[in-house]
Amino acid sequence: MDSHSLLARRAAALSPAAFSGHHGTIPFESGDAFPGIFPDLTAAAELALTKYRTETLQYAPRPGLPEMREWVAQYLTADGARTSPQEVLMSNGAKHGIDLLCRLLLDEGDSIVVTAPTYFTAIPIFKSHGVSFVEVGQDAEGIDVEAIEASFTRLCRQGRKLPKFIYNIPDFHNPTSVTMSRRRREALVEIGARHGVLVVEDSPYRKIRFQGESEPSLKALDQDQGVLTVGTFSKLVAPGLRVGWVTAPPDLVNRMGQLKSDGGSSPLLQRTVLEFCKTGGVESHTRIAQDTYGAHRDRMVRALRRELPQVTFAIPDGGYYVWITLPEEMDGDALAKRAAEEHVLIIPGSKFFAGKGHPKNHVRLAYSYTTPEEIDEGIGRLARAYAALAEKAKVQENA
Amino acid sequence: MDSHSLLARRAAALSPAAFSGHHGTIPFESGDAFPGIFPDLTAAAELALTKYRTETLQYAPRPGLPEMREWVAQYLTADGARTSPQEVLMSNGAKHGIDLLCRLLLDEGDSIVVTAPTYFTAIPIFKSHGVSFVEVGQDAEGIDVEAIEASFTRLCRQGRKLPKFIYNIPDFHNPTSVTMSRRRREALVEIGARHGVLVVEDSPYRKIRFQGESEPSLKALDQDQGVLTVGTFSKLVAPGLRVGWVTAPPDLVNRMGQLKSDGGSSPLLQRTVLEFCKTGGVESHTRIAQDTYGAHRDRMVRALRRELPQVTFAIPDGGYYVWITLPEEMDGDALAKRAAEEHVLIIPGSKFFAGKGHPKNHVRLAYSYTTPEEIDEGIGRLARAYAALAEKAKVQENA
Repeated sequence: MDSHSLLARRAAALSPAAFSGHHGTIPFESGDAFPGIFPDLTAAAELALTKYRTETLQYAPRPGLPEMREWVAQYLTADGARTSPQEVLMSNGAKHGIDLLCRLLLDEGDSIVVTAPTYFTAIPIFKSHGVSFVEVGQDAEGIDVEAIEASFTRLCRQGRKLPKFIYNIPDFHNPTSVTMSRRRREALVEIGARHGVLVVEDSPYRKIRFQGESEPSLKALDQDQGVLTVGTFSKLVAPGLRVGWVTAPPDLVNRMGQLKSDGGSSPLLQRTVLEFCKTGGVESHTRIAQDTYGAHRDRMVRALRRELPQVTFAIPDGGYYVWITLPEEMDGDALAKRAAEEHVLIIPGSKFFAGKGHPKNHVRLAYSYTTPEEIDEGIGRLARAYAALAEKAKVQENA
Repeated sequence: MDSHSLLARRAAALSPAAFSGHHGTIPFESGDAFPGIFPDLTAAAELALTKYRTETLQYAPRPGLPEMREWVAQYLTADGARTSPQEVLMSNGAKHGIDLLCRLLLDEGDSIVVTAPTYFTAIPIFKSHGVSFVEVGQDAEGIDVEAIEASFTRLCRQGRKLPKFIYNIPDFHNPTSVTMSRRRREALVEIGARHGVLVVEDSPYRKIRFQGESEPSLKALDQDQGVLTVGTFSKLVAPGLRVGWVTAPPDLVNRMGQLKSDGGSSPLLQRTVLEFCKTGGVESHTRIAQDTYGAHRDRMVRALRRELPQVTFAIPDGGYYVWITLPEEMDGDALAKRAAEEHVLIIPGSKFFAGKGHPKNHVRLAYSYTTPEEIDEGIGRLARAYAALAEKAKVQENA
């Protein structure tokens, strides 16, 4: 499979067209994919538009193409989470999947459990459904299940409704890159089952692992249809496809199909993805993504240690992000603003909290989109921004 | 442009694969496109996946690709409705566009104006936003503007809020195929502007005209940004693309962009459509669609006159549908049920009313999806169903 070869990708990575969007600014804020490794989908698209033309150019079945749902079910089953095609609903990417789950499950005034911090793009989706948040912390083993238990007990005692679901990213969490330990996963699934609260497992980065072994997915540990999942081809193939999925019991899948305001997700995209999948494209692209993003991570970790020894962070085993803890007196929003003046973009930690009153000394850096050279240059600029800000603070203190 | 030639399409139309879904049942219920005229998009997709690879496989700008928005703006401007690219938001088809407008404009407890009957797929979308309906009738010139005026006056007198918008399909209305006259269009735009009530113009069939001249679009007659529009490539290219658009003032476009739960519509689909558009694909496909659906309409009109002289209908000048009026004592639901037993599917008129208490003696037939031969066969079956039902009624009457 020459078109999937690493060499071909490397050649693409070196072409200037791959980086036309930066304009001199280094975008560590961007969770975009590295353009240098986009796969060659021309053969898959051509098949989709010829052999499957009457399928791909017509209106599609709302839950998705049957063969696509089958492929996803097999993919998840191979990963330890037994899934039938009837449990799979195709969506326009993971965000659309989250929105469909919200449309299905949430009523005005409901609450949900999220980590603090959590995936910042999901926050406005949740808010648009009128929910309130029960925020719980994380440690190195993942979401704090004891805090969930304590909050459920408190709500019960007050005679109030329990949250509708617990939303979590168990693998290479966005933004913290924490991966849940096995025993924490078991505890999370157990607490959901015991209280009758659904768990929504959003795991886009699971396969982008650079080292170590995967823990079982939450769905793999679930005995009671208590775990719904959100998945996407954005990291397995390419984000521009906007093809993802939701898994849920078949009756919920059918109801979400009715809620899809787009009718059905594009059969042309689904068939293109599917033909790519059938040739082993996901597996080969996953290996390339692991190699590439692993090298990007190494580069960023080295640069941070060299240029910014004042900050702390856990080295991510996978995913796209480094979650930086600044010294307590350093404000992440101020650093992001100062960094933009140095032409490097980062996201202040404050954006990742659904509620208020959280620590301000964090920023998130993505190493996915930029080249290794840009990573070195960008961390250098960030260090300059940091030094300028620290200097200013010192001057003010002395004044 | 050989790939767009009618001959190539005809050849495709004759291949058995094009009709693999019917299984002996004739689907006049389906507003699907005729598979025999699907255009050849392979060259456009290949360009999208090679030359534009870093654009099409990456996350997309939420409002759509700038060049795509420009194309749509020019297309609408050429049709008499001056539109800037900033007024265009790309969507995943027209239904998604309607949903985005609802998300933007509607609050729980709002009402909207719809025709009785109206586009049945839009009804559950509207309902999911918790609206109530002000239903007004239609005549041969389109929506009854005097009835809208009377209802607004009544609401004002009662101190109640006016509807948030008037939803209408001015060209080849679904299901009635009525096209609004120019003076009725002017009256509709005027009443909206005078009362400060927006008009939502949904016009997917506008270009699928078999005879006569187009009237100006509602947007072309609008002086006050009072008309928002919903459009789609489903009829201009192919439904499987799921690419459509909404036009609105730029600030509303930006707010709808934020409401797009899918992030941005697939840049791969947008670029594929755009490259097809740039080669004149829409114009050539529109001519083919006019020829094909015009011939289908002729065939259905002839068959209905021959086989079912008991029913009445207006001959559509364009679009996909014939709206049948049955004798008053004949129930559309009963006919649809009996027809299904004869293996021909139709939609009872009752499905097209947002409210209750409407006439029951209508059915909608689509001539878009089936072949001319299937149209003859299907109307024959429908006539048998009709005769059986009429016979049964006579027997019961005499009993």
